Amino acid sequence: MRLTVNLVDRKYDVIVEAGSIGHIKEYADLRRKVMVVSDDGVPAEYVHSVLSQAEKGFSVVVAKGEISKSLHGYETVLHALLNNKFTRHDCVVAVGGGVVGDLAGFAASTYMRGISFINCPTTTLSQIDSSIGGKVAINFDNTKNIVGAFYQPECVIADTATLKTLPRRHYINGLVEAVKAGLIADEKLFEVFEKNDIERNLEEIILRSLNVKKNIVEQDEKESSLRAVLNFGHTIGHAVESLHMDEWYHGECVARGMIPMTEDKDTVIRLKAVLSRLGLDYRITDDPQRLFDIMTHDKKAGSDFITAVKVRKPGQVRLVRISYPQLRKIVEEAVK
Amino acid sequence: MRLTVNLVDRKYDVIVEAGSIGHIKEYADLRRKVMVVSDDGVPAEYVHSVLSQAEKGFSVVVAKGEISKSLHGYETVLHALLNNKFTRHDCVVAVGGGVVGDLAGFAASTYMRGISFINCPTTTLSQIDSSIGGKVAINFDNTKNIVGAFYQPECVIADTATLKTLPRRHYINGLVEAVKAGLIADEKLFEVFEKNDIERNLEEIILRSLNVKKNIVEQDEKESSLRAVLNFGHTIGHAVESLHMDEWYHGECVARGMIPMTEDKDTVIRLKAVLSRLGLDYRITDDPQRLFDIMTHDKKAGSDFITAVKVRKPGQVRLVRISYPQLRKIVEEAVK
Repeated sequence: MRLTVNLVDRKYDVIVEAGSIGHIKEYADLRRKVMVVSDDGVPAEYVHSVLSQAEKGFSVVVAKGEISKSLHGYETVLHALLNNKFTRHDCVVAVGGGVVGDLAGFAASTYMRGISFINCPTTTLSQIDSSIGGKVAINFDNTKNIVGAFYQPECVIADTATLKTLPRRHYINGLVEAVKAGLIADEKLFEVFEKNDIERNLEEIILRSLNVKKNIVEQDEKESSLRAVLNFGHTIGHAVESLHMDEWYHGECVARGMIPMTEDKDTVIRLKAVLSRLGLDYRITDDPQRLFDIMTHDKKAGSDFITAVKVRKPGQVRLVRISYPQLRKIVEEAVK
Repeated sequence: MRLTVNLVDRKYDVIVEAGSIGHIKEYADLRRKVMVVSDDGVPAEYVHSVLSQAEKGFSVVVAKGEISKSLHGYETVLHALLNNKFTRHDCVVAVGGGVVGDLAGFAASTYMRGISFINCPTTTLSQIDSSIGGKVAINFDNTKNIVGAFYQPECVIADTATLKTLPRRHYINGLVEAVKAGLIADEKLFEVFEKNDIERNLEEIILRSLNVKKNIVEQDEKESSLRAVLNFGHTIGHAVESLHMDEWYHGECVARGMIPMTEDKDTVIRLKAVLSRLGLDYRITDDPQRLFDIMTHDKKAGSDFITAVKVRKPGQVRLVRISYPQLRKIVEEAVK
């Protein structure tokens, strides 16, 4: 299935299809130098598959994990491009999860002031979350995504067959983003999680999630207010994540963060049922004061509110100002 | 004098005015955090002048020279921004020559995926050459400008009073770009160099040069063919430069490179007179074979021509394919 993302000055396709990496050259122009960037957790067969279809294939493999989304990892990719004399007509192909896509995308966005970037996300999270949006970045000085660019790929190949080899927990982690997408803008998608066989409807789930994101990003390419609705579940989720960094995945924290920001009681019950069905624990057990402190820490001195995303029922989303006392109350109730 | 550059999705002003740094806040919004980036060759009074007008001023000073246009210099600026908690609403102000503008601009283009960038070029070369075009970059692995971005400044403040403190040779170096602009697109500008007092007409010279570049860049923002005419004098000039890196300035090499690419004999005589008036030596004394080898070194295997820019008379410019034997002949005649 093909989805076309239309931006102000360009458009590109997202292919959602099992086995698409195996014939990527039908979708992407590989008749040039191709640098495949992956990490050592990505099955080598995907990398070899792309290389075998490229006119001149090269490969750089970084260490698995967030540690590679660094200035050092960036240098590694730049060196590979420069040492192999890549020109502005050549391309970078990311094969891997969000770390690989972000790192390879940032290198592609700045090498010779920008060369072609093709993204092959191989995790549920990256297929849903990083395929659309054009945000690429590395971490710097312990700060996530602080250095980066808005840079659109030439195309995205979401090969859903790659998800079959993912560890279950990793696989579910990404699906939380799809649940989120359903809640903010697509009740039908949310209902798939309530009623249908998830494995069998995986392509539909991913495609519908991408459609939600596509509609938002097309209207708001450079991230101002509208795009903020994608942060549903992140206000409290990020605070929880910062306390459980090495223990819980991002999606597991966002799952926890969505419930307190869902207003309609019936919808909360439905959401909890979906999360349970996915095997997700949605309880928050941290000290409310600590969570509150984290959420208000980066705010400007003198400010006494935050802007958060609330969902009433699936598809009914809004941005709301929440005063500090209200926020404090929400957190306390979430922990009960 | 104010020049407005109109690009596809935004526009910005270039102010050309003696003393403009002294009241920069009238042109640029400094009611936020302002990081002034300069090098230790830039008179401190310019930096202090900007800082004194900023609501919250910070400053980072790198070492003078090309060495700072590096990944290390980039890290230095990023650290300064991050340590001082700059947000996406704050700004970077470059005060210095091309190195400072390129480095600060690249940091601004990638910090938080892009924050405001205000450029105050303080050399003739940077006022003429880097004020318009939106090309920012650093060097990497001994390769010039290999990592960078197309990133437009919020505004450019070209304070012509800063040029008075430049060493004469440095000052003349930049004027070669103005001579080049006159030759490719503005005969009146070329005539200023032939007939008028250069010091007294400095603002006009810079403004006219910027206008030439503006017209080209507005039509061709991302550097395809049209913009290539700005490379007039660079084919042979770059080859000469690579043999005299530590000895001659860029403009001194471009001056040498323009003559062999000027077709009309009368115009060659006029050009030589202008270069002499500026005190520039335009003779090439290198081995023609070495120059030829350098010019053809980076070309694709199997290609047997280069694309170069030729000027017939001032304002009459064209891109031409030059076969290797023709190129060889041009170089030999240039060295005679």
